Parts: sequence; structure tokens; C-alpha cells
Amino acid sequence: MAKSGFVSSITRQSEDFPGWYNDVVRKAELADYSPVRGCMIIRPYGYALWESMRDELDRHIKRTGHSNVYFPLFVPRSLLEKEAEHVEGFNPQVAWVTHAGGEELNEWLAIRPTSETLIAEVVKDWVQSYRDLPLLMNLWNNVVRWELRTRLFLRTAEFLWQEAHTFHATEEEAAEEVEIGLEAYRAVAEDWLAIPVVKGRKSENETFPGAVYTHAIEALMRDGKALQAGTSHMLGTNFARAAGIEFLDRDNQRKNPYGTSWGFSTRMVGATIMAHGDDFGLVLPPNVAPLQLVIVPIFRTEEERVAVAGSIDRLERELMDRGAFVPGVAGASDGSSRRPGGLGGSTGDGVPGLGASAAGVRYRVDWREESPGFKFNHWELRGVPFRLEIGPRDVAAGQGVLVKRVDRSKEQVPLDALVSQLPDRLQAYQRDLFQRALDFRAAKTHHVDSYDEFKRVLDAQGGFLMAHWCGDGDCEKRINAETGATIRVIPFDSTQESGRCVLDGARSTRRALFARAY
Amino acid sequence: MAKSGFVSSITRQSEDFPGWYNDVVRKAELADYSPVRGCMIIRPYGYALWESMRDELDRHIKRTGHSNVYFPLFVPRSLLEKEAEHVEGFNPQVAWVTHAGGEELNEWLAIRPTSETLIAEVVKDWVQSYRDLPLLMNLWNNVVRWELRTRLFLRTAEFLWQEAHTFHATEEEAAEEVEIGLEAYRAVAEDWLAIPVVKGRKSENETFPGAVYTHAIEALMRDGKALQAGTSHMLGTNFARAAGIEFLDRDNQRKNPYGTSWGFSTRMVGATIMAHGDDFGLVLPPNVAPLQLVIVPIFRTEEERVAVAGSIDRLERELMDRGAFVPGVAGASDGSSRRPGGLGGSTGDGVPGLGASAAGVRYRVDWREESPGFKFNHWELRGVPFRLEIGPRDVAAGQGVLVKRVDRSKEQVPLDALVSQLPDRLQAYQRDLFQRALDFRAAKTHHVDSYDEFKRVLDAQGGFLMAHWCGDGDCEKRINAETGATIRVIPFDSTQESGRCVLDGARSTRRALFARAY
Repeated sequence: MAKSGFVSSITRQSEDFPGWYNDVVRKAELADYSPVRGCMIIRPYGYALWESMRDELDRHIKRTGHSNVYFPLFVPRSLLEKEAEHVEGFNPQVAWVTHAGGEELNEWLAIRPTSETLIAEVVKDWVQSYRDLPLLMNLWNNVVRWELRTRLFLRTAEFLWQEAHTFHATEEEAAEEVEIGLEAYRAVAEDWLAIPVVKGRKSENETFPGAVYTHAIEALMRDGKALQAGTSHMLGTNFARAAGIEFLDRDNQRKNPYGTSWGFSTRMVGATIMAHGDDFGLVLPPNVAPLQLVIVPIFRTEEERVAVAGSIDRLERELMDRGAFVPGVAGASDGSSRRPGGLGGSTGDGVPGLGASAAGVRYRVDWREESPGFKFNHWELRGVPFRLEIGPRDVAAGQGVLVKRVDRSKEQVPLDALVSQLPDRLQAYQRDLFQRALDFRAAKTHHVDSYDEFKRVLDAQGGFLMAHWCGDGDCEKRINAETGATIRVIPFDSTQESGRCVLDGARSTRRALFARAY
Repeated sequence: MAKSGFVSSITRQSEDFPGWYNDVVRKAELADYSPVRGCMIIRPYGYALWESMRDELDRHIKRTGHSNVYFPLFVPRSLLEKEAEHVEGFNPQVAWVTHAGGEELNEWLAIRPTSETLIAEVVKDWVQSYRDLPLLMNLWNNVVRWELRTRLFLRTAEFLWQEAHTFHATEEEAAEEVEIGLEAYRAVAEDWLAIPVVKGRKSENETFPGAVYTHAIEALMRDGKALQAGTSHMLGTNFARAAGIEFLDRDNQRKNPYGTSWGFSTRMVGATIMAHGDDFGLVLPPNVAPLQLVIVPIFRTEEERVAVAGSIDRLERELMDRGAFVPGVAGASDGSSRRPGGLGGSTGDGVPGLGASAAGVRYRVDWREESPGFKFNHWELRGVPFRLEIGPRDVAAGQGVLVKRVDRSKEQVPLDALVSQLPDRLQAYQRDLFQRALDFRAAKTHHVDSYDEFKRVLDAQGGFLMAHWCGDGDCEKRINAETGATIRVIPFDSTQESGRCVLDGARSTRRALFARAY
């Protein structure tokens, strides 16, 4: 595999994107393959990223009136098979428990690939009247979908996710709920992960098995490929009818409630890597970064070390006064798996999660024995937004060198003002990163009006192709077979416009968003 | 089943403790059985309790330098079988995946009953040098142990838990780590859940399969039975040797690291119910209570309603000013599953988890159409620490009636001072509840010196029996077979004292803690 020649020795992004991705995930110690085929181990630094986006999404979910619950890991075969399209969609990927407690089971149990059927069966007993609606539930759990070709975070046999399941008295209310879910995903993707997304509707071919329609957010990765970043499904009364859920409405009629479900998974860790990363490794938005600032002391003699340490101690006291903390989660190889105090002192405060930047700057001082160059690479690979270098001459001048990870720009900053500026600098960094991704997407979005142009632009540039499509599923499948591109969504904000399908020339009133995708 | 005659119509605790427990769990909507044998559904109110203790424990775990990680759900059969005692202990309870992705698997996969063997296999690649140690990891996940006789929260085929796994260069450090885990559990049990616990060592018969020794905390339930509330295991080098983990130590010798593991599960929700509850239902410590205060308006005419609403609005504004919030998690049947605003207005703030009392009082105003009596029962069943009743005469006098759940005592309180007093009142409530449990345990702890006395006291009073035991495993088994009592722990704080084993009269130097247990 082509190596970049940097000390961090990861594959260059531009030369081999999949190789680069794999290197970043493994060498930044985000995740690893396990002895179980297709299943991943999420390591401390990767899990901290997941915790941050999970906690932020959880706040959105609770704020919009949903309650967290837990449902069993197992779905009896007879239940999974109740909704015909659903079982057809998922059956090939199911892992089955056939023996337990030393005996063969009478009925095989599926490890949940998703929980619609099990939940509908239970909700049947909970929903009798319109007064029991809406029912707004959310589950944080693990699901299993047996995959042959797996990639860490992006496609694994087991993954972690959130699945919301809601039931409503009317179709209108369910339709609103589909948008509430989607909006939560947009907010987390854009405002937390700095990943711009396009909201839209999936084509019929790409609709969730058993759903009436599926809405999704689509993001663009730095190799020009799309990634589906969250889906929200209108289930109509499909699962409710299959399970026999009925409620007595205000008008005294017995009706089936309307359902929705929506999910967001650990693949968003992969999206965060691929939306921002570069040849030096991760580039993390400050909101989600386990560490936002790393301080690297630079010295040769003991005298210099003492001087630098004094300067850093003052800085740390100021950071702590303003509620900063040293998270104990940043991965084994930086020494942080030692008891607090190993690198940069203890937090003294067990701040839950890593999301709330308001709680103070998350920082660490890297006093390890390795060289400054080694440390620069180490933290660049891990995408820490700011690095502060302090050497003996800096101490004398009361300053330090602040390096921004995203453009590696250096700036001399007076230490006495730095701490008070950090929150603003982090916010600006977050904003700029989002803008950079937005600009990148704008440059990679092309309106194409013929199939030749479609294929030429796709091969030359990748990215998002806005093209007219007649709405026919076979047309869509042929485009996919011939170009590798799929319809990601029919964007909500694409304007009505008359045109002709790029493939068969049939009339079309709206462009669809095509791309090659993860 | 004997019903109590209260409006809430739950079985009386004193008449039928298991029936009472089941009623509380089902009627307070904490959990329910599922279509999958032995697996439970955790409902919003029950899940909120779990989230609160989980988040509090997570703070302790992170504060002591551990990192959260994730390992796969599956353990290949060959790995599970690597540690001989371990597989013997768990094999009978394992659920096996034999088919996946439409094919029969070459090797069966166990659904993890616990993750020691899988983790040891992976850590083999991570630990090469003393510099890679200690390795301090924690997992929040689900495990499956196939159980024939299940009880909601207490014993279910699938449960949620935390399992910490650590590796150390020396036995001393691993021994310290065993105590760090145990102390985290003590802190959560006593300081968060107000459940006093006894720390001690398990007898050999009760030691974790594959461990050198097991330390545990034991709690006393209100029926006089014990409940193991958390265990921490010294694994020695057992799993490390089985997996072949070796590291190069400072002295240039290759060695096996010492391991520990410790776990705390959803059964602690059951412990919280059984340690504090009474004939009226749950009694929750304020720290863990999803709601700490419920306000019940009392009125008959529209004029009265308006007056009461005005008074409550002022109170709510003051509560909000002080950071109070209305959690959206308190269960479907109280109307809270509606969008915020349904009962008591929106929080406007998505406070993660429900643990941090410092964030303000968690309250709700119950404006539902049901009668005040219905509401009193509803919230008493759910264990809300304080209820504030406000009627038209109270409005005129600028006061309300504050009812403490634990003793149902009533007090007239001036409304203008109430909000500022609430944090102190909640703290005092938490303290008093712990003291009550401590007093209960003191009254139920008996030193017994003969086998006759042992059996008589056990049958008449239950509780904790401190009795001399010779240390022989067969003796222990016979006592268990004849009385139903087991050795819960040999308490750390039991003083050296010469005596004779209650069964065989052999010399003993220390009393063990016996009890019938969950």
C-alpha cells in the first residue's frame, strides 16, 4: 500500500482513499477488527466520538418528547415473518439462535436486525385508545445484519445505533414525526459533526422494507462518494395491521395507528472521518473532539523543562478555573489509560460524555518522553483541533505557538489571553469546518442534462449529480448497473423544473440526486 | 392474589412480597415481559432509573481512569472454551448462533454471557510491554444467560450491564483495582440509590468461574432477603495465560499480566425497588427519581382553576429560573409521552440523563382530567419524593400542602419560600432514606452462635445472620441445602474473633454473613 512518507506513515488520502481510511481508523486507534468475522471492536478514542454524537442526539430525542426504552435482542422467527416485505428485505442478513440453555429451541430466534416487528407485537397490548397515542419511544442498542464485505464503522455485522419507534392516531401526525426524526439527524450531522447534508426522499427501490416511504439525509465524503447519514421511515399502518394493533378513536371507530421508525448508527463515526480527514489523519470538529487542545512542552535541558512546566502550570490553573477538564478517554497509546494524573493531571470532575463544550475546554498536556515531532504527528493523526507548543523562548516572551489542525497554520499567541479566547476560537473552528465542507460540496455538485455528461462528470469528478429522472425503477436500476451511481434522494429543496430523464428521455419535473455511495 | 384495598390496588408488601414486587414493576410501568421467553421490556420510567444509575456509575468509572469501549456480541465457541472453569460455569446458560446470512456457520457463536475470553484474545495483540499497562477498559452492553426461572430486573435471560476489564503488570495493582471497582459500586449503591451495602469476599463456592477470588457488595431487601449488588473479580493470570497474553516487564522478563473484571447490572433497578418500596408502591431516592416533585392542582370551578393555575405558573417560573426541568421520560400512562407541554410545559433544555440534581429540580405539574385521589395514587405508586397540593384556599393563603412520599407526612408550606428550600429538602430526604435503610438493616442483622439459633432466627426474622463458619465448602453447601441460606460474603469489617462453626463446631476466627438471597 502506498505510504505517504510522513512520519505518521498513513496512506495518502488522494492516492488510495480506502487505504487511507483504514490506516486512520487503525492507527488513530478508533476501532479494530475482532476474532468474530465482520464484528468490530470500538477502541477508547472511537468510542468517545460515538458517545459524543450519541449524547447529542439523545438530547434532541428527549427534547422532542421521546422516551428511551429497551426491547429484547431476540425476535422470534414467526414475528419477524409477519410483515411480508420486511422479512424479504432482512431475512438474508439474519443471524439465528437455534440452541440455548443446553437445548435446541422450538422456535429459532433472530438477533434483531431492527425491532419493528417485535415492538408492534408488544404495542398491541399498550395501545387501546386514542388516549394512548402518540407513543414515542427510542432504543439505544446493538443490531446484527450479517454482511459479507465489511468495513470498520461503515458496514459491520454488528453495529450500535438508535432506533426510534412511534405510533400515531393520524397519518398527518406520523408524517410530521418522520420530519422530526430527520431534523434531529440533520442537526447532529450539521451542527455537531459539521457535515452538511441534503434532506430528501428515497426512491421506491431504496425504501426501507415494509415502509410506505423513507426520508434520508445524504452527506458527501472527501472522495466524492455519498454516505447515507440517517433515515426516517413512514411505516403507515403496515406493521400495525400485521400485528393487529387497533385503537378506539375519538369518533368511536376502531383504527390501526400509523407508525414511524428512524435510525442513526456508528457508521456516522466513519462519516465524520471521511467528511473532514486529510493526509495527516483525522480532522475533528471541536464539538465532537474528545480533546480540543493538546499542549506540547518543548525543552532540552532540565532548566528549560522547569521553566516550561511553570508556564504550563499557570495555563492549566486558568483552564481549570474556567471549567476545563482532562478526559480519561483518549486511547491507550497516549498514556491516558493510566490513572488521571498521568498526562496533564486529574479532572476532579466526572463530566458525563464529552459533548458539552460549555462545560469547558477538553485539553491534555503531553509530557511523554517522546520527541515533539512524534507528538505533533500523534495528535494530528487524532485530529485534535488545536495544538499549543511552548518552548523556553516562548516562556520568556509570555507566549506560545498555536497550531490549527485543519490548515496547520501557526500563530504566536500571548498566553495570558489564550484561555479566555479558546471558546471563541473553538466555535470559529467548528463554523469554518462546516463552511469548508459546504464549499467542498458546492464544488462537487453538478447539474447534468444528458447521460453522456452524467457518466463523464461522474468518472472525472464524482460528487453529487443533479439529474432528471423519469421516476421509473427500472431506469434507476439500469443507471446503477451501468455507472455504479444510485439515486441518493430526491431532494426536498430541488425546484420544480421541466426536463427529461437522463436515461430514457421521458418527461421529468424534478431532479434527483445521484452519486456513488458507501 | 391478595389485593391491598388501596385505590392503587397493589398486593400488600407484608402479605406477599413477590406479588407486591411484580405489581409495582408492572403497574408503575417499569418493565414488562416480552414475547421472547425470559427477556424483558424496560419501559420509560424503568429505563430512566437505569439511565440515572448508569450515568452516575459511568462518572465514577471515568473519574478513576477507565475508558469506555465496545466488544462484539459474539464469542466464538473455541474462545469461550479456553478457560476451563469459566466454560464449565457458563456453558449451560449460553445461547448459540448456528446460522447466519443464510448459511450454517462453521463455528458456533455464543451470545456473550460475559466477555473475559474474547477480550483476553484481543488484548494479546495490544499488550507487549509494561508500557502498555495498565489497560483499563469498560463496556456498557447487553449479555445473555439463559435462565429457566426469570423475574423482571432480578433475573432475566438478557440484561443490561457494565463490565469492566483491566490488565496490570503486578498482582498488587490488580488487587487495588478490584477494590476500585467495588468502591464505585458502593458509592452508587449508598450515595445514589440510598442502599447500604456490606463489602466482603465471596466464599470459594460463590467465586466467579475462572477467578482467583471475588469481592462483592451485599444489600438487604425489605423482605429480609439479601441481594448481591455488584461483584469485582481478581482474575489473576488465569485468562491471560489461557489466551497467551505476555508482556516484557521492566526487568526484561516476559510475564502474564494480572486481570480483573467487575460488573453492575439492571438488577440494581430491582434492588432499588425492594430496598425502599412499601404498600403504596415505589419509594425513590431523590438522586435517582425521574421526577422529584409533582404538583397536583385541586379545584372544582373554573374560577378556582384559574386561581390555582396562576399560583402554579408563578411557582413554575421560579422553578425554571433555578434550572428545574420537566423530564420527558416518566412513562406513557401519565400523559408524558406527548410532546413536551402536555403536562407542565416544556423543558427547553435537553439535560442529558436524569442524575444531576445540581441541574435543578425535576418536576411536573399534573393537569390531567383525573381526580386528585387518582393522581395521588399514581405518583405514590411511582415513588415521587414530594407531592405539592395546591387548592383555592391555599392560593389565598400563599401556601400549599407538601407531602413526603416516604412517610406520607403532610406539611403546610409557604409557596414563596418553597422553591429555594427544595434542594435542601431533597438532600435531607435522600439522607433520611439511607438512614432508614441502615436502621432497618441494623434491626435485621443478628449474631447467632448455634445452628439451632441460626435456623430459628432465619425462619422467624430473615435478614443478615453473622455466624462462625469453618471455611469448608461442604459445610457451606449443607447449610444452604438445609436452610436455604448462603454465605453472602465474609465481610471486610468483621473483626477477628475466635468461635466455632455453627454447623460442625470446627474452629473459626471470623464470622461470615449468611442470608437467603435473590
